[in-house]
Amino acid sequence: MNSRRIILLAHGSSDKRWRDTFESLAEPTLEAVSNSRIAYMELAEPSLDTVIREGVAEGAREFTVVPLFLAAGRHLRKDVPAMIEALERSTGASIELSPPIGENPLLGQAIKDVVALQLGQST
Amino acid sequence: MNSRRIILLAHGSSDKRWRDTFESLAEPTLEAVSNSRIAYMELAEPSLDTVIREGVAEGAREFTVVPLFLAAGRHLRKDVPAMIEALERSTGASIELSPPIGENPLLGQAIKDVVALQLGQST
Repeated sequence: MNSRRIILLAHGSSDKRWRDTFESLAEPTLEAVSNSRIAYMELAEPSLDTVIREGVAEGAREFTVVPLFLAAGRHLRKDVPAMIEALERSTGASIELSPPIGENPLLGQAIKDVVALQLGQST
Repeated sequence: MNSRRIILLAHGSSDKRWRDTFESLAEPTLEAVSNSRIAYMELAEPSLDTVIREGVAEGAREFTVVPLFLAAGRHLRKDVPAMIEALERSTGASIELSPPIGENPLLGQAIKDVVALQLGQST
């Protein structure tokens, strides 16, 4: 009940097709990693706020936020750290922010595989 | 000289660290796929316009644009198709737009591997 929760944080969009793509992207992780959830930074639910507060209500005190972003721009350098700081203050939870997934070299390898596949299919 | 050129299209940012991350992400593809380049939709050079015009000047007539985006939002549904249509009209080139890399299930698998690695390192 008190184990660390993992939150896959996507940007968020009012477009359902956009959210569907992120839910598919998150699915293998949500299946493989226990206590993992998806949350949206803005424009969609569940928000980061919702998922943290729900976790705290259920007894969780430690969270790791893994951004489903290819690179860190203003959102990950400023907005998300500010949201996390406010949530830590208001809930007492400890929330760790991981680097965006795109900073891991595995992503570059996967992109290469995707491009090679797409080119193979289109020729 | 007339072979198809592949353009990895990233969003673009005025932040050099952001561009550095995308250049690292693109590197394995640029090394593995001949005639491939990176280009930015906005806020950074080389722009899509620059890379297409450069290719056309060097004799290329066919291009495939692969978006380094996790999902298709307004940019990929409206802005990029409009840019491509204008470039086709003004240059006579044929420019194909691929789905964003995030729509390929390989990306979801890579995300799972990255999250598992990050959690392994942080515990």
